[in-house]
Amino acid sequence: MDLDQITDLLEPADTTMALLVLDGVGGLPGDDGQTELEAADTPNLDALAAQSDCGLQVPVGPGIIPGSGPGHLSLFGYDPLEYSVGRGVLSALGIGFDLKPTDVAARGNFCTVDDEGCVTDRRAGRISTETNRELCEKLRSIEIDGVDIHIETVKEHRFLLVLRGDGLSGDLEDTDPQETGVSPHAPEASDPGHSDAVHTADLVDEFLRRARQLLADESPANMMLLRGFAKRPDWPTFQSAYGLDAACIASYPMYRGVARLVGMDVLDCDEDLESKFELAAQRWDDYDYFFIHEKQTDSSGEDGDFARKVRVIEEADAALPGLLEQEPDVLTITGDHSTPSTMAQHSWHPVPVMIHGTHCRHDRVEAYNEVDCLDGSLGPRFPGPDLMPLALAHAGRLTKYGA
Amino acid sequence: MDLDQITDLLEPADTTMALLVLDGVGGLPGDDGQTELEAADTPNLDALAAQSDCGLQVPVGPGIIPGSGPGHLSLFGYDPLEYSVGRGVLSALGIGFDLKPTDVAARGNFCTVDDEGCVTDRRAGRISTETNRELCEKLRSIEIDGVDIHIETVKEHRFLLVLRGDGLSGDLEDTDPQETGVSPHAPEASDPGHSDAVHTADLVDEFLRRARQLLADESPANMMLLRGFAKRPDWPTFQSAYGLDAACIASYPMYRGVARLVGMDVLDCDEDLESKFELAAQRWDDYDYFFIHEKQTDSSGEDGDFARKVRVIEEADAALPGLLEQEPDVLTITGDHSTPSTMAQHSWHPVPVMIHGTHCRHDRVEAYNEVDCLDGSLGPRFPGPDLMPLALAHAGRLTKYGA
Repeated sequence: MDLDQITDLLEPADTTMALLVLDGVGGLPGDDGQTELEAADTPNLDALAAQSDCGLQVPVGPGIIPGSGPGHLSLFGYDPLEYSVGRGVLSALGIGFDLKPTDVAARGNFCTVDDEGCVTDRRAGRISTETNRELCEKLRSIEIDGVDIHIETVKEHRFLLVLRGDGLSGDLEDTDPQETGVSPHAPEASDPGHSDAVHTADLVDEFLRRARQLLADESPANMMLLRGFAKRPDWPTFQSAYGLDAACIASYPMYRGVARLVGMDVLDCDEDLESKFELAAQRWDDYDYFFIHEKQTDSSGEDGDFARKVRVIEEADAALPGLLEQEPDVLTITGDHSTPSTMAQHSWHPVPVMIHGTHCRHDRVEAYNEVDCLDGSLGPRFPGPDLMPLALAHAGRLTKYGA
Repeated sequence: MDLDQITDLLEPADTTMALLVLDGVGGLPGDDGQTELEAADTPNLDALAAQSDCGLQVPVGPGIIPGSGPGHLSLFGYDPLEYSVGRGVLSALGIGFDLKPTDVAARGNFCTVDDEGCVTDRRAGRISTETNRELCEKLRSIEIDGVDIHIETVKEHRFLLVLRGDGLSGDLEDTDPQETGVSPHAPEASDPGHSDAVHTADLVDEFLRRARQLLADESPANMMLLRGFAKRPDWPTFQSAYGLDAACIASYPMYRGVARLVGMDVLDCDEDLESKFELAAQRWDDYDYFFIHEKQTDSSGEDGDFARKVRVIEEADAALPGLLEQEPDVLTITGDHSTPSTMAQHSWHPVPVMIHGTHCRHDRVEAYNEVDCLDGSLGPRFPGPDLMPLALAHAGRLTKYGA
């Protein structure tokens, strides 16, 4: 079912929906054979699971390890294989850069080139973030007629380049040759007949010429590679696609950025889940949909800290009544991907999910974890992007298909 | 798997298949925590489930509430998202109007317009069906050269308009503006370069001019809105797609109409399931495939009558041996959607399904209901349109794919 087919079926309802994302909540068995969710004491999540449609969801596809952007787009009902975001845009989202619709963003790497201009290290020995900041400050002296240039440090050798102006296009090829021993590619329009793209390539060419002069005496970061030129995509919003006034309650830039991409209001909030639920309560009557994000389940998993992840899950469970008090008509709880502590990274494993509403069938699930949810009515491999239409149905917001 | 890919794999077999549709059979827990199927005493269905491939099937898509047309097309193996029927055609099917392949049908609403011709009520205060009949009779006096006009009452403010003649097209835009305070749209070809459509739009324009004159003094139904112009689709039939001579044993016009769309012979029958099974027995040697329809499971659910739905299910169960006596080589039992009594309407919930044949694996299902079937070999969310190829396989009617 495409997004526009869902849009065709919308009908108004006076219901409020919530999505609680416990980032990276899915896990793998630790030393004692239990996953983080199994090891955690979660009376509130378990009680809710017993009254919910449960299962495990696959955010992107079988075996695919979701990035945070695609993982969240999936939960928002935007199939990440169809709604893909350029790397430049993801970089901007990741550092909270407020990208305008006409901006072109690219992901930059500082790199090392030899006297002939051939790349010898595509990451310039992974320079420190501090050095990166100094280099970016230096590059900000570049001025080119007809375009504003923004340069922002991301991390280590990575930075963000944004061109702001009229008549720009993101349809450019990467300058990163993806190998050493060769020169960076000259910036080129993907379609030489596209005049905006040719114009933008000329601007990037001039920028690179000046950047190379400025960086010439630096070592090891004496040049840069650019890739993933892209404009902010022009997608249906939560309002246009689903008729929902949606609020984002998330404290990390990446998640706030993805929420902004789909037209959510991004509210200012503190980092702890309890205060996020309080904020939702205060604004409960202003919105139809709340996306609430908990980051620490993922951070602890990425740190490989099983015990901390268990603790964070228990804290989320303890905070949950603060959200349940609002009696959301539909509440979906899941993660944007799994982050097993034993792997200390995002993984492809399906994520336990529950949808709670007034029209749930009972199944045999009595606990919210990777093993019990296998018995749920959503099944062991529910497609992530299908959660949104299902939640809309529970919210009474979809009419009959065909007579 | 597309329908034509299935067709490529057909091989002949001397087997007889049956599909028993217990319309709207899926439910939700009632006051005592059991669904209608769980509450019903169904020894025959349960015994059959224990020997069948069981599961739950999703007729259209996750969260999508199937109309009767799409729900049945799914069971017939025609993906309803691909094989969509215009509203006009559905209206014709719903009242048993025998649509010819060259006819153009539209769904009509009587409406109210003010002195300036602006719509003030899109449904003319939901006039009675009796008033509707009088208005339709009046409209039948309209004669236009080159086209036969058929006008049939559907219900309340709704009627069916059918244009019959040569060179007509269904590619017209709705005249219904979908809002009040504006005039109805003039009939227009979707593609102004399509001469048949332009011709048809002119005919509809003339019809509306005459209708407006005739209705001018009526109140509140002094005008009409038309939408969903469509011709009867030209789809593969059960014979061309599956090589099956198929019979429909259903008493309600909508189901007979959908069966006719896919080329089934529509047999005359009484309403009770017992006599339907008797009719199947009488005609057993004349067909390869029987579609047998029970309506009361849905009607009782739509009436919100939990107890009656339980009783209807028990009656169907009691009648079942009348069908089993024929020893169909493959028997599929399911609904075209769920109709929980607690919701008193069609719902999106998956529908319990069983396929019984001689080559079933045993699974752990011992009862035909929403919870037990979760454990079945078809899984908790089997796509409805996949039931047909699976049944064909059980019937020995599909050959190997690839050497």
